[in-house]
Amino acid sequence: MTFQLGVYSFGNTPRTADGGYGTPAQAIRDLLQAVHVAEQVGLDFFGFGEHHTPSMPVSSPTSLVNAAAASTHRIGLGTTVSVLSTDEPIRVFQQLATAAAIAPGRIEVVAGRGSSTITFPLFDLDERDYDLLYGSKLELLLAFNGQDRVTWSGPHRRRPLVDTLVVPRPERPLRIWLGTGGSPNSVLRAVELGLPMFLGILGGTPEYWAQYGHAYHEAWAQVGHPAEAADIAVAVHGFVAENDRQAKATYLEHETPHVPNRHG
Amino acid sequence: MTFQLGVYSFGNTPRTADGGYGTPAQAIRDLLQAVHVAEQVGLDFFGFGEHHTPSMPVSSPTSLVNAAAASTHRIGLGTTVSVLSTDEPIRVFQQLATAAAIAPGRIEVVAGRGSSTITFPLFDLDERDYDLLYGSKLELLLAFNGQDRVTWSGPHRRRPLVDTLVVPRPERPLRIWLGTGGSPNSVLRAVELGLPMFLGILGGTPEYWAQYGHAYHEAWAQVGHPAEAADIAVAVHGFVAENDRQAKATYLEHETPHVPNRHG
Repeated sequence: MTFQLGVYSFGNTPRTADGGYGTPAQAIRDLLQAVHVAEQVGLDFFGFGEHHTPSMPVSSPTSLVNAAAASTHRIGLGTTVSVLSTDEPIRVFQQLATAAAIAPGRIEVVAGRGSSTITFPLFDLDERDYDLLYGSKLELLLAFNGQDRVTWSGPHRRRPLVDTLVVPRPERPLRIWLGTGGSPNSVLRAVELGLPMFLGILGGTPEYWAQYGHAYHEAWAQVGHPAEAADIAVAVHGFVAENDRQAKATYLEHETPHVPNRHG
Repeated sequence: MTFQLGVYSFGNTPRTADGGYGTPAQAIRDLLQAVHVAEQVGLDFFGFGEHHTPSMPVSSPTSLVNAAAASTHRIGLGTTVSVLSTDEPIRVFQQLATAAAIAPGRIEVVAGRGSSTITFPLFDLDERDYDLLYGSKLELLLAFNGQDRVTWSGPHRRRPLVDTLVVPRPERPLRIWLGTGGSPNSVLRAVELGLPMFLGILGGTPEYWAQYGHAYHEAWAQVGHPAEAADIAVAVHGFVAENDRQAKATYLEHETPHVPNRHG
């Protein structure tokens, strides 16, 4: 069993002295610089998450994957996650295949169902369709990743695709992960599709999350997939300092936003 | 009046000895290298066109704009054109705003109605709607480029947008061109919207095309837009060599594809 260590980010817009936000553009530049540092210090992977808020302005993770692909040499890169339910899977494939041409063998995609509902009204979709959209679009993404010409129909399209070629094609298939915030349904879908599982963890104990790992491995073995392909990635909050005491002190100092005293 | 000189490309997949095509991935890598050379020799601009064929595999020009933004320092970059009719204008804006964060002041977009019909079935749209889709999506792209919060409805969406913020925002608006292959209707639309005009020229005499320039300038003056904003870009086929004779000889040698003699 091998382990890889990486980081992920949605971009962090710097705070201003008055408690507001600086420019999202600065956050994008800071993020690209962080990738370069991550490669320099030898991390295995850098992931870009999709959000649509002033504080977390990486709305197009595939754009950053391409920017990073062209300005790094070794580090693995990917979207963590692409909110596939509200995106166009053919475009996502094309964008990441372009990055894979620039950085062969270094590009991955984590396809998520969506952790917030903000992208549904933004992209003119009904959030009640979130699971249908996700299932259908993930299937199409996998189809284009797996073969040159695709004949396919599914509920997110009105018209079928017939013997359709999408360019550019990556020289070998992209690595596609199923991203989940911990729904049993998603664990089973990952197993069914034979996909590695990416757990986005926002809270809860290690014991709680270990259940998902066990359930995944158990179902995987039952289906009869090759054991070595049952990869799990875990994305957690982290904070690094010289030692535990220093880390806690620095973290807590910045965790509570400074609220000016309204009475003086 | 100032002039700028640049180049554009849809990517050129290298031909193989048997008359077929090499990998589109190689075409993407060659293209990114061409941008670096273009910057080195001092060109003002490099544009990426959108096509979806094995011979011209730049299906996601915004991905290449981002890759080029992160690996150049001075040259202007843009899409030439983005086929806006069949894309999601909010995504196009987000992708190019990300590039504009990385390369401030260097990013432009040429929004086109589409020169081939291939993208309509690919992205599940009806090509009979091409003008309606283009007009509606261009209006929304301009709205997000011009203001922070957008309240908007139009025929390409079922649901209106209400006080919607899209991130990241570029520090100053993107330069948006109206791209046209020479339809009088598009010339008038560019004037109506106060946009610079990008003429994609595939054939015809200079005199023929000058008519479009005159019509644009005349209508522009009538509307009362400031004269200095009436910019025209011209994209033409070009071939460069030491002198005219050498250029013609080399060009013609490669123009007719080599067809092996089937009888021997």
